[in-house]
Amino acid sequence: MEVFFLGTGAGMPAKLRNVTSIALKLLEERGTIWLFDCGEATQHQVLHTSIKPRRIEKIFITHLHGDHIYGLPGLLSSRSFQGGESEVTLYGPKGLKDYVEISLSTSQTYLKYSLKIIEIEEGVIFEDDAFIVEAKLLEHGIPSYGYRIIEKDRPGTLLADKLLKAGINPGPIYKKIKNGEPIELENGEIIESARFLGPKQKGRIIAILGDTRYCDAAIQLALDADLLVHEATFSSGEESLAYEYFHSTTVQAAKVAEKAGVRKLCLTHISSRYDRTDWMRLVEEARESFPVTVIAEDFKEIHLPLR
Amino acid sequence: MEVFFLGTGAGMPAKLRNVTSIALKLLEERGTIWLFDCGEATQHQVLHTSIKPRRIEKIFITHLHGDHIYGLPGLLSSRSFQGGESEVTLYGPKGLKDYVEISLSTSQTYLKYSLKIIEIEEGVIFEDDAFIVEAKLLEHGIPSYGYRIIEKDRPGTLLADKLLKAGINPGPIYKKIKNGEPIELENGEIIESARFLGPKQKGRIIAILGDTRYCDAAIQLALDADLLVHEATFSSGEESLAYEYFHSTTVQAAKVAEKAGVRKLCLTHISSRYDRTDWMRLVEEARESFPVTVIAEDFKEIHLPLR
Ligand SMILES: [Zn+2]
Ligand SMILES: [Zn+2]
Repeated sequence: MEVFFLGTGAGMPAKLRNVTSIALKLLEERGTIWLFDCGEATQHQVLHTSIKPRRIEKIFITHLHGDHIYGLPGLLSSRSFQGGESEVTLYGPKGLKDYVEISLSTSQTYLKYSLKIIEIEEGVIFEDDAFIVEAKLLEHGIPSYGYRIIEKDRPGTLLADKLLKAGINPGPIYKKIKNGEPIELENGEIIESARFLGPKQKGRIIAILGDTRYCDAAIQLALDADLLVHEATFSSGEESLAYEYFHSTTVQAAKVAEKAGVRKLCLTHISSRYDRTDWMRLVEEARESFPVTVIAEDFKEIHLPLR
Repeated sequence: MEVFFLGTGAGMPAKLRNVTSIALKLLEERGTIWLFDCGEATQHQVLHTSIKPRRIEKIFITHLHGDHIYGLPGLLSSRSFQGGESEVTLYGPKGLKDYVEISLSTSQTYLKYSLKIIEIEEGVIFEDDAFIVEAKLLEHGIPSYGYRIIEKDRPGTLLADKLLKAGINPGPIYKKIKNGEPIELENGEIIESARFLGPKQKGRIIAILGDTRYCDAAIQLALDADLLVHEATFSSGEESLAYEYFHSTTVQAAKVAEKAGVRKLCLTHISSRYDRTDWMRLVEEARESFPVTVIAEDFKEIHLPLR
């Protein structure tokens, strides 16, 4: 599981940072990639990576500002041209469906795969065997969602050696054991599956937030997360500017990380007013409140180790 | 007057060629730039040039396929962020207005300049003192326009020395002479203005065409042009493929150039199936019918000298 930054700038594309898009690579976990936001030229950024558009399974849009959505029609079209055939589900605020459908119909683009568009509200917006995704509204003037991606705990691996030693041979019973069900041996003895399973695998938690002022919802979404991706459009000291434009400063992002007790904070959505020589300073500002802070850069990847 | 290529590829962005956009630089002529098509990431390409978005006065869209329009919302928004205040007029096929307006309203983008959107039909779509723009439908499955940009002939420059020698002193009369009106001297003598004017400046003609099969309309738009920009999605020999997909081959573009008697042909909209090592071959194919052929590349500029 990796978080890969395709675009990390604010408002407009700049030479050093494209507008927002973040890929959550779930290649080992489900063979797919989830995208968070899709600013203009996200598909161009993808061209310079190993990401295959046909692997994109879900796209979560935080809010409808242009720097977060204008790359959608092109990415969706190109995925079709390039032979993507599996369904894509698109999640985002009300208005997303009209925008995407009119962009595709104006250009007479007919996708060769099924595209499901879900206009979300707060709460659990997706759940299957392995993952839950929750959305909560942040504070950005227009509806802007933060997403909490929860990997479910996984049962331990089967201890095959121990099973064989106990005289339990491979068969449908192994599946029961894997599922943690109590098992009855041929001699009538009932034993606990847990004896034959390695330790449970704790799931990871990632919080990827849309543009926002410092707010409580951000803390709730990030509680105990392995990684919090939080915007930091402005540097420390620019709190009133940040408030006025519905954005956050480095220090405010760090405060959220600290209160939520996350393992790592990554600052993104960096204004082009800060150039390469300023980036380290931005990180240092955040580290005063929250030491495990890094700053996103286009094409940077953060690996999320198992707990 | 220069034609500057911002994107020269076909269908999808590729590493070597972005999707279509062409800038007609009229900086000397009117202090502005006209854009023809605006594929995704046109604004990103502009970042690497000396083109100022606020200088963009008109945008002509040839057709509504995504690779020709998906960069519009971003470019129009960024022009506003960057302080563009002068009006922009956007010309293109029916459907363009809805697409642009819904993209801007979905993202809650309020431009700080006036944007006029004109859904065109065939004929003269713009005329002022200095330029005429004509549009004609090509053959591309969906409405695809070609544009013929005609610079009007300009009167010769005032020959000030000669005027002074004839005892005609500066004043409102100079304007009359400049306009070619007959003038009456104080002594009642009537003389022809032309005596005091340098040679007339012939205007230039540029034809910039949308995607198309080989067709007569292309020839009519390009008649006697200084430059014809014609698509060449396919190489020679792929005529049936080109026909099927409503595109042209190198040789067909050259045939149009030859029949129209243009001064120069530039091939563009090159498929990514052809890589750098193929480009010279594509040019040579066209040169067999029309020797003065070049191939467009992203960031290439063609200067259009006075006649
Ligand atoms: Zn943003
Ligand atoms: Zn095209």
